[in-house]
Formats: sequence, C-alpha cells, structure tokens
Amino acid sequence: MLITDLVRRRLDSLTKPPASLGRLEELLMEYAEVRGAEPPARPRLLAVVCCGDHGVTAEGVSAWPSKVTRQMMQNLVRGGAAMSVLCRHFGIDIWVVDAGVQGEPVDGVRCLRLGEGTRNLAVEPAMSLDQARQALEHGRQLAREAASAGYDFVLTGEMGIGNTTPATALLCAFSGLSPDSVTGPGAGLDPAGVSHKASVIARALKRHARREPLELAACLGGFEILMLAGLLLGAADNRLPVLFDGFIAGSAALVAQALEPASLRAAFFSHRSAEPGHEAMLKKLGARPLLDLDLRLGEGTGAALAASLFQAACQLYHGMATFEEAAVSGKL
Amino acid sequence: MLITDLVRRRLDSLTKPPASLGRLEELLMEYAEVRGAEPPARPRLLAVVCCGDHGVTAEGVSAWPSKVTRQMMQNLVRGGAAMSVLCRHFGIDIWVVDAGVQGEPVDGVRCLRLGEGTRNLAVEPAMSLDQARQALEHGRQLAREAASAGYDFVLTGEMGIGNTTPATALLCAFSGLSPDSVTGPGAGLDPAGVSHKASVIARALKRHARREPLELAACLGGFEILMLAGLLLGAADNRLPVLFDGFIAGSAALVAQALEPASLRAAFFSHRSAEPGHEAMLKKLGARPLLDLDLRLGEGTGAALAASLFQAACQLYHGMATFEEAAVSGKL
Repeated sequence: MLITDLVRRRLDSLTKPPASLGRLEELLMEYAEVRGAEPPARPRLLAVVCCGDHGVTAEGVSAWPSKVTRQMMQNLVRGGAAMSVLCRHFGIDIWVVDAGVQGEPVDGVRCLRLGEGTRNLAVEPAMSLDQARQALEHGRQLAREAASAGYDFVLTGEMGIGNTTPATALLCAFSGLSPDSVTGPGAGLDPAGVSHKASVIARALKRHARREPLELAACLGGFEILMLAGLLLGAADNRLPVLFDGFIAGSAALVAQALEPASLRAAFFSHRSAEPGHEAMLKKLGARPLLDLDLRLGEGTGAALAASLFQAACQLYHGMATFEEAAVSGKL
Repeated sequence: MLITDLVRRRLDSLTKPPASLGRLEELLMEYAEVRGAEPPARPRLLAVVCCGDHGVTAEGVSAWPSKVTRQMMQNLVRGGAAMSVLCRHFGIDIWVVDAGVQGEPVDGVRCLRLGEGTRNLAVEPAMSLDQARQALEHGRQLAREAASAGYDFVLTGEMGIGNTTPATALLCAFSGLSPDSVTGPGAGLDPAGVSHKASVIARALKRHARREPLELAACLGGFEILMLAGLLLGAADNRLPVLFDGFIAGSAALVAQALEPASLRAAFFSHRSAEPGHEAMLKKLGARPLLDLDLRLGEGTGAALAASLFQAACQLYHGMATFEEAAVSGKL
C-alpha cells in the first residue's frame, strides 16, 4: 500500500468527520509523502539557525548595526533569543551556525564561516562562486548530519543584520519583480529607508544581471541564505522534510528551486510574514503557508510555531481513538 | 502605569525588533487589557466542552445519527476524542458538560442537563424561555467556578450532532443574512443535504420571527450554545478571557453579543473554520481569528491550537532576554 493511502486510511478511521482537521491532515499527508513514512508520535525536530553578516549594510539598508548579528548569535546560544525560548518550549533541538559573522567566533556556535560577512552586493559580487558552492555544500552536509542523527523534520532559521536586502534582491532576480514593488522595512526601516533600500537593490540587480542561478546567488546572496539553500538540497536527497521560516528563509528556497527544482518537494512553508515581498515569494514557490501572524522576527520563530502544529497533528494521528475503539457510530 | 503600557514596555525591551512578534504581541496586549494583569508565564487553561442534542435532526439536517453526541461525549472523557488529545498534549484542563444529551448520563461528565435534547426548531421553539435562562445561568456559573479555581483563560468547546443548524439559524437571525448564503455542510452533508438544511433553517426563521434576543436564542438555539453564551457573560464579569472555537462557538458569542454587547470584550477568536457562514459570523463579531486551518471538527480543537500560541507567547514574554540583559545594541 502507498504510504499516503495508509495515512489517509488511518486519518479516516479516527473519531472525527473525514478531513475535518483540515490543513493538519494535509500536513500529515504531505509529510508522509516526502518522508516515505508515517508521521511519528513524537517527531524529533531540529532547527538549523544560520547566521551571517552583509557588506551591503555599508549602504545604510538596515535600521540596526551589523554588530547585532554576533550579539544575537550569542543570545541564541545563551537561550535569550525568541527562537531559543520557542525551541526550549516546544522541545526542538537547535544548531546555531556561524556562516560568516564579523568578529570573534562565539562559543557554542558551530563554525562554518565563509568570511567575516559578504561583500557589498551593491558594488561587487557578495561572494565568489567558490564561496557560494562551499556554502551550499555546508548546507548539504548539515542536512546529511541531521538525517543521520535521526531527526524527522528540520526547521530553518537565520540571523543576519541587513539580510532582507539580499533576500529581496534574490526575489527580484528570480521572479522578475521590481525592487519598488517588493522591498519592505525589514527589522524596522522608515518609509524613506525602504525607498533607499529599493534603490540599492535596483543598483545591485543592474550590476549583477546574470543568467546562471549560481552566479546570481553568489552576486546577490548571503552566506546564511546559501547555506539554507544547500540544507534543502541535502534534505531533499535524504527525504528529510524542511520547514521554512519567513522571508529570508524563503529566499533560500528560491535559490534551491532555481538550482534543483525538484528539491522544493521537501519544503514546507510555515508562515506568511509581514514583509511585503513575502506574498510574491510564496507565490513563486507555489507555497501556502500554515500561519499568518504578521511575524517579522526571523531566527526561525515562525517555523517553530508551525512545527508545534505538526507536533499536535502527530499526537492526534497517534492518540485519537478510532470509531471502532470508541464504539462511535458512522455516518448515516 | 496602565497594565497595557507595562506589557508594551516589557515587549519592547526584549531582544527583537519592536512588534516583530506580530499577532502574538497583540494577543498578549489584549489579554492583559481584559484580565487587568500581565500574562502569566504558564497560564492555567481550561476547556469547557458543552454537549447537547438537537430535535431538528428529525429533519435530516445532519449526516450523522444523534446517538453520536453521547458516544463522543464518552470519547471526550475517556481521552480518545481530538479535543482530549490536544488538551493532554498542551496541558489544558477539560470540563465536559452534559447540557442536554439523549440517553443515560455519562460518568465523568458534569451533568447540567436541561432536557434530552432540544425540540425541533423547524416546527416549535427549541426550548422554553425558562430553559434558555437556565442554560445561560449554568454558563455564568461555570465561568465563576473557573475564575475561582484560578484559571487564566477559558476555551470553549462543544459537541452536538445537528448543531450547525441552530448555529446557522442564529447567525441568520442576528445578522439578517439568508440561509442560502451561509448554510454549509457541517460534519459532512452533500450539496443536496446543504440545500435541504438551508430550507429547514428558512422555515424556522419564518416561524420564529422575534425581536427579543433571548426569545430568538430560545427558539433557534441549543442547550450547549446558550450555555457557552452564558459562559462568556459570566467570564466578562470576572475579567476572565474566553477563547472561542469555530462556527458553533461563534453562534454562542453572537447570542452573548445580542444580550450584553460589552461581554464581547472578553472574547478571543481562535480560527476561521471551513464552514462557509463563519466568515460572515466573524465579521458580525468584529473578530480577526488567529488561525486559518480549514478546521471543521469542533469540540474546541481550534481553540486548543490557538491556546498553544498563547502559551508560546507567554513563554516569549517571560523567557526572552532584554537588550540590556543580553548586551545587544539598539537601533541606529
């Protein structure tokens, strides 16, 4: 029997009207299809939070100083960041990864540095092709390790001051949309700042007009973004589902989609963020996210909240009584 | 200092961009305003699941036999129903209440029976005015007990074969919408069944054209629906927030709104259900629910899932580091 048929049969045997758990049932079905296995009762969840700095902050595209990336990476491993709290609360393991952050390495962070931040993508390629390949390979390797370690679902997270700029640039490059139509405030720009950011992105797109996805990703991306793209590529190879967070994570999915369209099968999308370009990005990814809570924090927080719905769905799948067990009558 | 100012100040001191937790921050603010207190780190949650049978099932308005109400009430107390599983998973206490179910009382269920089901609202008032008043009073009493017991948030749940029919009738009566435009499949009617159900509701509305909200509620309602309406009235008096589930629970909120408009201040709405009339109902209630997962199971399942977001929000509120504690720099 196909695994999806088996899961459908189990769901329909439970004491509820068929399909009445709506998107939770769809989630379980899609999970089973990617994973090739029934949803576990207590799924082992891992959040991979990749951090990186961005040379384009020199253009004044963020409301926050770059040093906050490293400070927040510390906060993540020390347990004070929003994502740390949610992972603790929901029982999600967390790997904080330094993909390329300025300053001294931080204890407790996995060091896979590709540099101390990218270069300024408005004036030169953000990284070399070799760095881009290396970032993707690190991501693939993280996925292989997560699969070997027995995780059932991997969540993406990221931290990187300035990273809505590369994310938006990648969205424009891969979708053909104009920076004016999709650039947003990120972590708190005012309208004048958003307008300036859109002009910086327009400049970058003009400078880096390329055809090859890998070149585009190298010119416009970020280390943490490409690492998360690689994570999806590696996860798809291992039938390990990946739950994407919001706008930045979505740009990583766009890169993976451009490089290996089939990898998107392993991707789940957690929420629709408040960032204005996210809707267009989700459309390009063919994604219908689970949550819509106006989140714009990143770190993986939306993915953690959506993962808690998956945990609940798994509990329902295994914990509910069947019509037979509960001696409940069927439909007329 | 106003409690909402205190909560806002705390939220803005945490290591995240201001308001970046979106609707979770709004939820905490609104909770604090109703409760007159800061959100607790580990809120004590109670689900009140009221069950009732409906005489209108004689008209063939449900795809399920009435005896399923009692069977599912048993399933709820024995732990096999979807709501039982979610309450266990999220640490939510549950009171299963027999508001008027056919057959022998069930062990473990709180017996507040107003009869063995309502009468057929298509041909006579579903209940007497005295029964309606009694149902409301039972609900108020449940709220008082929940408040005395120290609960921080009460969730509504219900079980009652046929109860989308009274819920839809109440929606039409209180909003002026036509049954054709809002009647849906409930727990699984086919299109012909939906059409028939709409005609039964149209007949009931014609028969029970009344002006007074209490009369309308008695003629068209259900015991479990009026008890949940009373729950909100009593909760509002005790500044105890109530998290409503889906369409049936929403009809209880409509009754409370009609009787005491100010009581709606204590109401929170958990999800937009798949039932087609729910959108119009939410509009009438001025509600913007947290989740949109195509649920149509009832029992309080949507409220339980939304409550888990509240639990997470409370953890974030208390567990995140402040900028000062984590030595993270502020905005430029």
